[in-house]
Amino acid sequence: MKVNGTPTRTIWLNDNGWAVDIIDQTKLPHLYEIVTLNDLNDACVAIKDMLVRGAPLIGATAAYGMALALYHDATDAGFEKAYADLYATRPTAVNLRWALDEMKTKIFPLPEGERMAAAYKLAADICDEDVAQNSSIGDHGLKIIEEIWEKKGKKGVVNILTHCNAGWLATVDWGTATAPMYKAFEAGIPIHVWVDETRPRNQGASLTAWELGNHGVPHTLIVDNAGGHLMQHGEVDLCIVGTDRTTASGDVCNKIGTYLKALAAHDNDVPFYVGLPSPTIDWTVDDGVKDIPIEERDATEVTEMTGRTKDGKIETITITPENCKAGNYAFDVTPRKYVTGLITERGVAPASKEGLAALFPDKV
Amino acid sequence: MKVNGTPTRTIWLNDNGWAVDIIDQTKLPHLYEIVTLNDLNDACVAIKDMLVRGAPLIGATAAYGMALALYHDATDAGFEKAYADLYATRPTAVNLRWALDEMKTKIFPLPEGERMAAAYKLAADICDEDVAQNSSIGDHGLKIIEEIWEKKGKKGVVNILTHCNAGWLATVDWGTATAPMYKAFEAGIPIHVWVDETRPRNQGASLTAWELGNHGVPHTLIVDNAGGHLMQHGEVDLCIVGTDRTTASGDVCNKIGTYLKALAAHDNDVPFYVGLPSPTIDWTVDDGVKDIPIEERDATEVTEMTGRTKDGKIETITITPENCKAGNYAFDVTPRKYVTGLITERGVAPASKEGLAALFPDKV
Repeated sequence: MKVNGTPTRTIWLNDNGWAVDIIDQTKLPHLYEIVTLNDLNDACVAIKDMLVRGAPLIGATAAYGMALALYHDATDAGFEKAYADLYATRPTAVNLRWALDEMKTKIFPLPEGERMAAAYKLAADICDEDVAQNSSIGDHGLKIIEEIWEKKGKKGVVNILTHCNAGWLATVDWGTATAPMYKAFEAGIPIHVWVDETRPRNQGASLTAWELGNHGVPHTLIVDNAGGHLMQHGEVDLCIVGTDRTTASGDVCNKIGTYLKALAAHDNDVPFYVGLPSPTIDWTVDDGVKDIPIEERDATEVTEMTGRTKDGKIETITITPENCKAGNYAFDVTPRKYVTGLITERGVAPASKEGLAALFPDKV
Repeated sequence: MKVNGTPTRTIWLNDNGWAVDIIDQTKLPHLYEIVTLNDLNDACVAIKDMLVRGAPLIGATAAYGMALALYHDATDAGFEKAYADLYATRPTAVNLRWALDEMKTKIFPLPEGERMAAAYKLAADICDEDVAQNSSIGDHGLKIIEEIWEKKGKKGVVNILTHCNAGWLATVDWGTATAPMYKAFEAGIPIHVWVDETRPRNQGASLTAWELGNHGVPHTLIVDNAGGHLMQHGEVDLCIVGTDRTTASGDVCNKIGTYLKALAAHDNDVPFYVGLPSPTIDWTVDDGVKDIPIEERDATEVTEMTGRTKDGKIETITITPENCKAGNYAFDVTPRKYVTGLITERGVAPASKEGLAALFPDKV
């Protein structure tokens, strides 16, 4: 989507034809800095230090990391080292593993002299596939927004609430939850997005508000506490969120606080949709609340906050009493009964075992 | 309650016998500073600049403000000026108006020479009444906690979730929502409090966590997004929150986000109680969602955050993109159907017109 008026992806080939450019997302929303990855080590650091984040973008960066490694050393040893180093950056990331295995299956068998070019081509294909998948989620979601717009007699605006950042910054382009919003915006439907700031890491305030603002999509940042009040007063027409993991039965594991918004949507008859590429469906799990373990993260994410001082310096402050104990649960699970539909690249499925199975008969 | 081991109220007579000491709550949780009010102007500044906050404490400070004014000038003109100046500090505060009217009714008719002493006595009585009222809320709430403790076979701890600060810092002592917690703690029931940080003004993190910590009550600070997850996993035995205004039918207007916690409590069969002194019941309003206007506050409360830097300086930072539009709704309304009970100084009422009327036949 656009940054300062220029269509931009989160990862792209440098003008020199072989290095790879990314956005340093750790600096957002305070600084927009492009970083050039010149070798395997740069790619590893970018993933490890979260300059890139979001499952699809991590996969794409790993793929280009392999290409960069082969640019410098296309031997078997070079390939194996690159695979191992990249895998070690975030070993639990499913897309990282998948992208590396694609490389291993398709590139490693080639003669040394052909590996580099083929790796760059495959990395580009992985990026394009992600973009196509998200674009398709956007098209299916657009229909939902169009219907609401028509139901409103094409008057006013369509108010969409979202939580966290399932935006283009987490993918190569379009995003998952945001794809329908960008599609609606491009189609000329007047939308307005309520952006949950999404404590404790504030990805709504830092990333979603930043990307919507840069693309020109009208939006208002709110605290995570506000959505229920807005829904009670008819200020939200639908919710669209992303997901980290969806069970085969349609339970949705997403950033902590998603469940509370789904409850409020249910209580106020507001449709609650989840945008997701099908690889995030975990076909092996049924009961999300019972069977998905929830990661606990460092308490400093709750007790500290980073921002700009009046003189433009980036500063981290402690916002709690001294020695305050804090709990930091990363995700929660929204039971399927509170989910109106799952917007996938193949269409919109009801959040149920049958609904998902009908759309993905080849996967179950 | 205790601060650094010393039993403390939020307002008290200075050792000199006539000045009035308060805690500068704007500095919490970073600094604990006691400020001495020496005259009418000091009292006005304390209320206006929110060194004191919370309806009961504002009322008590206004009462002592009158006493301080009369200490310096007990003439009719002095009385009238004090009344007008104090009233102008926060004209929408119901307790402020009430305390000033008490003074007008009971002190103004007295001869000049008797006014000052009587005003100090009345201010002290207003404080003691608040303490007695909250203590009584605590005793009624204690019974609820005792029952839960017994149901749990007196094993583990009783986990209580609270939102915002309806603590002793908002009153003269005990607090409203916190009174049952302090009573349970004193009674030796092992409790643990989940403290919602309560964005955007973070009164949970700044005040509730601070006061529980100082009194020695075990607690864990969480982001406002986390409560639903904890309730899904049996980590919350009951919720107790405060209220700014309760309708005659039992709808509860409280800090934004309260409604979302009530929904989660309902979805997980967790009892959801509200601690309130009866003066916060608005007998003229029935439908809270429809009829209570919700104040919108300055957007900087959402976009900025204050805390301590590593070198101990108090700093305010901007946490959002530049020019980010933010919405800031101060309260929401929890419909009565999600409220298990209203803990008042007279006992626990069901959240209904009939329930409240039965407990307060003299008020309806």
